[in-house]
Amino acid sequence: MSDVGRGMLDFAAGFMPALHAATETVRAGGRLSGRRVGIALTLEPKTACLVEALASLGAEVSVLGNSYSTKSEVIAALRANRIAVFDASTDRAARDAFVDARPQLLADDGAEVVRYIHRERRDALEALVGVAEETTSGVRPLRTMAEQGVLEVACLAVNDARTKTEFDNVYGTGQSVVMAVLDATNVQLPGASVVVVGYGPVGRGIAATARALGGRVTVTEIDPVQALLAYHDGCAVEPLQQAVRHADLLITATGIAHSVTGADAELLRDGAIVAVGGMGQGEFDPALGGEVRLGDEVRAGVRAMHLSSGATAYLVADGHCANTTVGEGNPIEIMDLSLALQLRALDLLAAGDLEVGVHLLPRHIDDEVAASQLTAAGITLDVPNATQRQAARGW
Amino acid sequence: MSDVGRGMLDFAAGFMPALHAATETVRAGGRLSGRRVGIALTLEPKTACLVEALASLGAEVSVLGNSYSTKSEVIAALRANRIAVFDASTDRAARDAFVDARPQLLADDGAEVVRYIHRERRDALEALVGVAEETTSGVRPLRTMAEQGVLEVACLAVNDARTKTEFDNVYGTGQSVVMAVLDATNVQLPGASVVVVGYGPVGRGIAATARALGGRVTVTEIDPVQALLAYHDGCAVEPLQQAVRHADLLITATGIAHSVTGADAELLRDGAIVAVGGMGQGEFDPALGGEVRLGDEVRAGVRAMHLSSGATAYLVADGHCANTTVGEGNPIEIMDLSLALQLRALDLLAAGDLEVGVHLLPRHIDDEVAASQLTAAGITLDVPNATQRQAARGW
Amino acid sequence: MSDVGRGMLDFAAGFMPALHAATETVRAGGRLSGRRVGIALTLEPKTACLVEALASLGAEVSVLGNSYSTKSEVIAALRANRIAVFDASTDRAARDAFVDARPQLLADDGAEVVRYIHRERRDALEALVGVAEETTSGVRPLRTMAEQGVLEVACLAVNDARTKTEFDNVYGTGQSVVMAVLDATNVQLPGASVVVVGYGPVGRGIAATARALGGRVTVTEIDPVQALLAYHDGCAVEPLQQAVRHADLLITATGIAHSVTGADAELLRDGAIVAVGGMGQGEFDPALGGEVRLGDEVRAGVRAMHLSSGATAYLVADGHCANTTVGEGNPIEIMDLSLALQLRALDLLAAGDLEVGVHLLPRHIDDEVAASQLTAAGITLDVPNATQRQAARGW
Amino acid sequence: MSDVGRGMLDFAAGFMPALHAATETVRAGGRLSGRRVGIALTLEPKTACLVEALASLGAEVSVLGNSYSTKSEVIAALRANRIAVFDASTDRAARDAFVDARPQLLADDGAEVVRYIHRERRDALEALVGVAEETTSGVRPLRTMAEQGVLEVACLAVNDARTKTEFDNVYGTGQSVVMAVLDATNVQLPGASVVVVGYGPVGRGIAATARALGGRVTVTEIDPVQALLAYHDGCAVEPLQQAVRHADLLITATGIAHSVTGADAELLRDGAIVAVGGMGQGEFDPALGGEVRLGDEVRAGVRAMHLSSGATAYLVADGHCANTTVGEGNPIEIMDLSLALQLRALDLLAAGDLEVGVHLLPRHIDDEVAASQLTAAGITLDVPNATQRQAARGW
Repeated sequence: MSDVGRGMLDFAAGFMPALHAATETVRAGGRLSGRRVGIALTLEPKTACLVEALASLGAEVSVLGNSYSTKSEVIAALRANRIAVFDASTDRAARDAFVDARPQLLADDGAEVVRYIHRERRDALEALVGVAEETTSGVRPLRTMAEQGVLEVACLAVNDARTKTEFDNVYGTGQSVVMAVLDATNVQLPGASVVVVGYGPVGRGIAATARALGGRVTVTEIDPVQALLAYHDGCAVEPLQQAVRHADLLITATGIAHSVTGADAELLRDGAIVAVGGMGQGEFDPALGGEVRLGDEVRAGVRAMHLSSGATAYLVADGHCANTTVGEGNPIEIMDLSLALQLRALDLLAAGDLEVGVHLLPRHIDDEVAASQLTAAGITLDVPNATQRQAARGW
Repeated sequence: MSDVGRGMLDFAAGFMPALHAATETVRAGGRLSGRRVGIALTLEPKTACLVEALASLGAEVSVLGNSYSTKSEVIAALRANRIAVFDASTDRAARDAFVDARPQLLADDGAEVVRYIHRERRDALEALVGVAEETTSGVRPLRTMAEQGVLEVACLAVNDARTKTEFDNVYGTGQSVVMAVLDATNVQLPGASVVVVGYGPVGRGIAATARALGGRVTVTEIDPVQALLAYHDGCAVEPLQQAVRHADLLITATGIAHSVTGADAELLRDGAIVAVGGMGQGEFDPALGGEVRLGDEVRAGVRAMHLSSGATAYLVADGHCANTTVGEGNPIEIMDLSLALQLRALDLLAAGDLEVGVHLLPRHIDDEVAASQLTAAGITLDVPNATQRQAARGW
Repeated sequence: MSDVGRGMLDFAAGFMPALHAATETVRAGGRLSGRRVGIALTLEPKTACLVEALASLGAEVSVLGNSYSTKSEVIAALRANRIAVFDASTDRAARDAFVDARPQLLADDGAEVVRYIHRERRDALEALVGVAEETTSGVRPLRTMAEQGVLEVACLAVNDARTKTEFDNVYGTGQSVVMAVLDATNVQLPGASVVVVGYGPVGRGIAATARALGGRVTVTEIDPVQALLAYHDGCAVEPLQQAVRHADLLITATGIAHSVTGADAELLRDGAIVAVGGMGQGEFDPALGGEVRLGDEVRAGVRAMHLSSGATAYLVADGHCANTTVGEGNPIEIMDLSLALQLRALDLLAAGDLEVGVHLLPRHIDDEVAASQLTAAGITLDVPNATQRQAARGW
Repeated sequence: MSDVGRGMLDFAAGFMPALHAATETVRAGGRLSGRRVGIALTLEPKTACLVEALASLGAEVSVLGNSYSTKSEVIAALRANRIAVFDASTDRAARDAFVDARPQLLADDGAEVVRYIHRERRDALEALVGVAEETTSGVRPLRTMAEQGVLEVACLAVNDARTKTEFDNVYGTGQSVVMAVLDATNVQLPGASVVVVGYGPVGRGIAATARALGGRVTVTEIDPVQALLAYHDGCAVEPLQQAVRHADLLITATGIAHSVTGADAELLRDGAIVAVGGMGQGEFDPALGGEVRLGDEVRAGVRAMHLSSGATAYLVADGHCANTTVGEGNPIEIMDLSLALQLRALDLLAAGDLEVGVHLLPRHIDDEVAASQLTAAGITLDVPNATQRQAARGW
């Protein structure tokens, strides 16, 4: 099994020029050598490449697995390379073991580990020098913690870098969620009524992919500006309980629990398919309201939901985020950007001079990561001319 | 395993209103009851639904499997339902057993079985009343046989029905080939240089999908009108040996053997990916010309190709048609149309009054199949008004 | 004014490589020299280029103008070049003068002149050697006349050439109709509810353009296969009287009179805009049914329609085809293809050996016209290899 | 002529629900009554609606026209309504007369008037209470002035409101620039090589429109992140001097002078078309470098450029911004958003409590403007549920 994983890792590594460039930049500084680095990102071949890059830089890396989206062949490959993967019988046990390793630097996803440490494992705070956060769903609570004065560690909002937020969310998650759902179910998009719950960057990416492939897209929103964007992008905008009634495919992308409930699901038509494209933790909660009865898995990754009306709807990946469970997560090249930023962020945090709070990555790092992928694609940029340089300064 | 297959069949059946409508239409005529019907289509859940529909009509159905695209759980489900599936150790042995069953009516794919019968199993010709052919690749040789006077059976070009050729090829194969390749490799389309070899309906569908998802598409063609179409659709048009050099992803869609050879593949860049989207039989032949050396399978369905230049390219599904091997074939709703046409075609052939030759399906069958799917979607058409009815007759 | 027209003609000629190539091919045969050729196409800079090409070949050309879409500066330029343009005070007087010139070869649009000759000017039949028909709307009645045995002249269905029907209708008319409507009204497509009446090639082009620019498109149809195509292309499909109620923009594309009537228009919302994209002659007839009252022109080319409900809707170009009245017709490069085919068709008819009836252009002419535009764009095609040549013959 | 303008204004007003809603909101506060308000925006029917809204609120409005994009029928209609329009023989004379009116509140475009006042008409500073700036090109120098400590008035960056920058630039300018160019030239996009110089919001909108309509788009950039975005959006990225050589259509969108020069233009092919989509003031400067010789206007709004190579290229609108000169500017509904924001900004500035500097509009104004357009479209938003409200606060 480690051979299978090794093949996947090596294949992925061949499509990650930005991570390679970042590794060499960080290597020159030497700051990560000997540091304890914890990686709490969804474990698949691309994140495993970051893990191995860190190991190659002399860091002591430990990795947190979870029960539903971790690929066992990837774990095998990492362990064969003597890297610690915490993958216990329960998610909580795995997390505790991971925290026990006392990471100095942490790459977190959804701020799950850093919040857990602040709440229940304060013993691990002292060693913790800095946290790089990957997602919108994680940056939000970190900012709230900072505002409330309870955050005790320096954080870098990797998610907010332009090379992350304008790429990963839009091109990566949008496309891979739609593909994962189509792949799990074998239904078609042309002609389908696709309802997208939430029109943030992920929802926008999902809607754009669905529309490009022939779907008729309806968006539900609570924010007027995002709703107006959806409308201008050629989507209908409707309240959730109206949209649910005509959905062939309903995909949530809010990053917030209980965005769609069992009470909403009761309104689905026979044959409707529900999937989660955002954070995944209870974003769709079939048990909340209504009398939805979960039935058998009718295909791999597709479970029947029996509704009070007598209709049968289907749930993809038991409500976990579809692209990292049924699919393999974002495409390699998109993760190349995010993981290069992660590596640069961990390196920056390792310097130890950032204050407690939530910081943005410096702009030049964004530029360097973008430039490294352009260079690999053989692309040359223009150099600003005198007038353009002047325009940045004059008035 | 039959339970897994049963789940897949039942799930698919829920998305096939046109096949259900066609089944009831055919049942009313009673012509298929007791007839020996051979199904030589790619065996997956949707074609299995046609098989079961035929069985429900009282036909004696036998099914031909093949070695690379047949799903074993589907075979198990059919056999559990007492349907004969011929799936021997070699494709030839399976085919012989299938022909031994002396089908009176045959649904063929690529005209493979009917050509084999004309050439090597003429003993089976007497029983054969009619053949329904599914693909462009199969209608072409049947027409050639008719012109050369060697065709000895009545054939219906199901492929040429509008509800087949304007749907299956464009929406079905185009989209599912691209998705199968992305799924097998986890690479991304945005930014990729995608080379599509052949701009018939399948190539056009592949190109449209790739472009809609952010690819830069280059088409290679031998036909000037198809090339000009590609150009107007926003694709670059180049000779194959020029396009190969910058392909990130090269997909063939010609339906003709040797369309891309090892000599062409030698020009690929490091990391380029090759897949077949057309007929599959040798459409890409890495052994023809050049010194391409096939290497290990680096991921499920992805094999390394070592080039003379030292570069490594990758081949999806060992050159078999990507969507029916790595993927699950066309989406259910698209196959619903094709299979409803197949059922109507077999029923029409069963009447036994078609002359030897290649015939088109009557237009009313096309209309009825399209209308049955519209009805299931709750769509009402307008009725022609007096002027519109008159316009069809006056001048 | 002739200078303005001359500038427009010369500019257009610079973007018409296929017409230039066709002119040289025809010149070599010498068949059009001294022949009386009548051009009854919409008179704008591109068709004027065909007129001048014919004049350069030694033909005696006469041109028919009409009252609503002819550009006066183009007439001036042609007359300055000593070409006869019939542009009388009424359309009928102009047509009679045009027929009086006894054309031997006729390029017709909508079969208007050839039908008029058969019905009311049979004196002009004797001189008439052949007719090249430009549009779907014209080929339809010609075929009806042939079936009814009343057609008395050889016709070439230029419209049915692949280089015409797969290009002009789709890329040309679709895009130019949408642009003409947006230009006349200055309203936006993103977010608009666009209703397209009829999903033939023109309607499909309009729908695709509207959807690509952010519109939500609803199609009304009477044909189930076309309706199912619209559905797969991401459009809603509804009966006309339902769709009219939510249209921001309603565009007809049927080529048949009375497709939308005053009774339908009465259902429009306040601010809705109606335009005709097909044949134009009464395709939308506000006087038929209902009590629609036509009001003032509120902007150039936009007239108010006062509805019984008290709402005000707007009509573009008084119901004439929007792209040839408010706009300048199809783009130059698209017309280049159609007009090159027209020239080749007139040359073929001039040979005088075609029987009475409606004929297709030979395939090689299609290929040559497409190839001439590819050549001008610097595009090289692949040459079929041995297997590909064999595939056309073997089985 | 004032009747023509009146028709255009009234037609436009019917498509501007957000401006109407903002007018009523502002009316309730009464702050603009009796104030001297100067409007220095491009004068066309939509901005004229803002002018009339201000007049209806009791403001003393004066309007600045310019020599190349002002519509004379709009001036006539405003003057018939007793509104002062400064439209002198030279742009400078008009500007001086406009400043002489001593506006207290100013809606500026490109910060042209406010910079002029700071530099040359400091006598007008005392009366000036606040400035609302419409464009990216204007916010940039205002921020520079603030940083350098030379700004002496409170400014609101209307441009930076989400309802402006994510709409006007993307949907409005992008689409209207492309349409204006196609309309001026009658060439086609399908198959064209379109080069977009600069991939900010405007360039991105232009590229998206061009690609959606069948163009092959190449982007030139100096910023690596924007270049990588272009690449992911399916555009090629090349240095300017490489891209110019294959452009059929070259459109600048930088907002910075000298972005394309005569030296670059010398590399154009015969028949290439150049247009400006950004700020317009010398963004393309044919006189800088090279020996480009400007020739005759060959069509309305299209001038020949004779290159040293002997080739002839064409310049649209003499290098002024294409959509506001050849076309009628952004669509009405898009301007409805921007102008509603302008009105709200002028009202906020009128309160007189903003400090000197460049401020953002408060978020609630953005939300209200977006909501007013949604309401007019009959769209209802969802209300956040308990978990969603909690998510904004908890961690």
